[in-house]
Amino acid sequence: MKTPRTTPSRLAKRAVYDEETIHAILDEGLFCTVSYVSDGEPRAIPTAYGREGNRLFIHGSVGSHFIRELENGGPVCLTVTLVDGLVLAKSGFSHSVNYRSVVVFARAEKVENGEEKVKALARITDQLVPGRWECLRPETESEVRKTTVLAFPLEEASAKVRTGGPNDEPEDLALPIWSGVIPVRTVRDQPQPDATSAGLPLPAHLA
Amino acid sequence: MKTPRTTPSRLAKRAVYDEETIHAILDEGLFCTVSYVSDGEPRAIPTAYGREGNRLFIHGSVGSHFIRELENGGPVCLTVTLVDGLVLAKSGFSHSVNYRSVVVFARAEKVENGEEKVKALARITDQLVPGRWECLRPETESEVRKTTVLAFPLEEASAKVRTGGPNDEPEDLALPIWSGVIPVRTVRDQPQPDATSAGLPLPAHLA
Repeated sequence: MKTPRTTPSRLAKRAVYDEETIHAILDEGLFCTVSYVSDGEPRAIPTAYGREGNRLFIHGSVGSHFIRELENGGPVCLTVTLVDGLVLAKSGFSHSVNYRSVVVFARAEKVENGEEKVKALARITDQLVPGRWECLRPETESEVRKTTVLAFPLEEASAKVRTGGPNDEPEDLALPIWSGVIPVRTVRDQPQPDATSAGLPLPAHLA
Repeated sequence: MKTPRTTPSRLAKRAVYDEETIHAILDEGLFCTVSYVSDGEPRAIPTAYGREGNRLFIHGSVGSHFIRELENGGPVCLTVTLVDGLVLAKSGFSHSVNYRSVVVFARAEKVENGEEKVKALARITDQLVPGRWECLRPETESEVRKTTVLAFPLEEASAKVRTGGPNDEPEDLALPIWSGVIPVRTVRDQPQPDATSAGLPLPAHLA
């Protein structure tokens, strides 16, 4: 949704607000950065997350200072950034980065219902490895009780996307300096079993 | 440096404060997230950065609202996060992520000297592609004038590092559920020249 806070003062052409783009970026990320205010000062913590519909979930120990500060419902800013490429121009000034980022302004809503909590934990786990949750032993009541789940509505969210090659100044175009894009990707390598799994076949969701 | 703000309330064993570890994480990242407070509310913006000695630099247009808010010298929290692996346990509760992150609390110092500004811009460019700056045409005076460079001292900085496999509960170890680590890496693919560079050889710093 476009609000004064989600409207950038510069390069507004890079801003997008459609749900499909925002959800796709959120679904590809592995970590978000959670920024909040504590005693008037900024704090930021990277953490895993998951999305279901128009809500983003994070979790933590009920004893975590960070989680307890957020559950008071103060304003929070969540960001997810994916780097797609390094944009190399002929001048330093025209260098750039291809990226997709999402910024969400929201306040935490504590998920109290046990069944809802477990669903959210499944989303957070499957964000890292799709299909993982259904292979696991069920959570115990004690584990659910020891975990706080916070939901953030994705109402005031926006994305910024930069794609394409460098935009060099016209007078620089003839310079014999290599310009273009170095694509950047996050890759998952071959899963490495621990000692207890050396004899187990790699399950389908990891193949 | 260990201060109350850089001491985590949970999993304090993951926190490290030595300069070597902090610098190595900062030198590997591509983007940082800059969190600050505006009208009492948290804001966060992902941006490129560079490091020289014990200072971290970011840059932006002199007209950028974001940069102008920071240059007032209010408190800022910078974070860099590198994801190294997905830690798959036999229970959802024991899932984790291997990561290296740095959190810096600091206030912006505006770099006013032109020569110092250019040096900082070189660091920001070479952070993305080492060796890039010396291949470029020199910055013009106007470009330097149109760019604000902010320096953040790395005094109050800490890192968090998680490595290794899952820590399953003893009673879960015999479950026939695959557990282990999926290594995650950021890779750079073959550079793609733009139209002006199709005839140019790939320079050594990109090979």
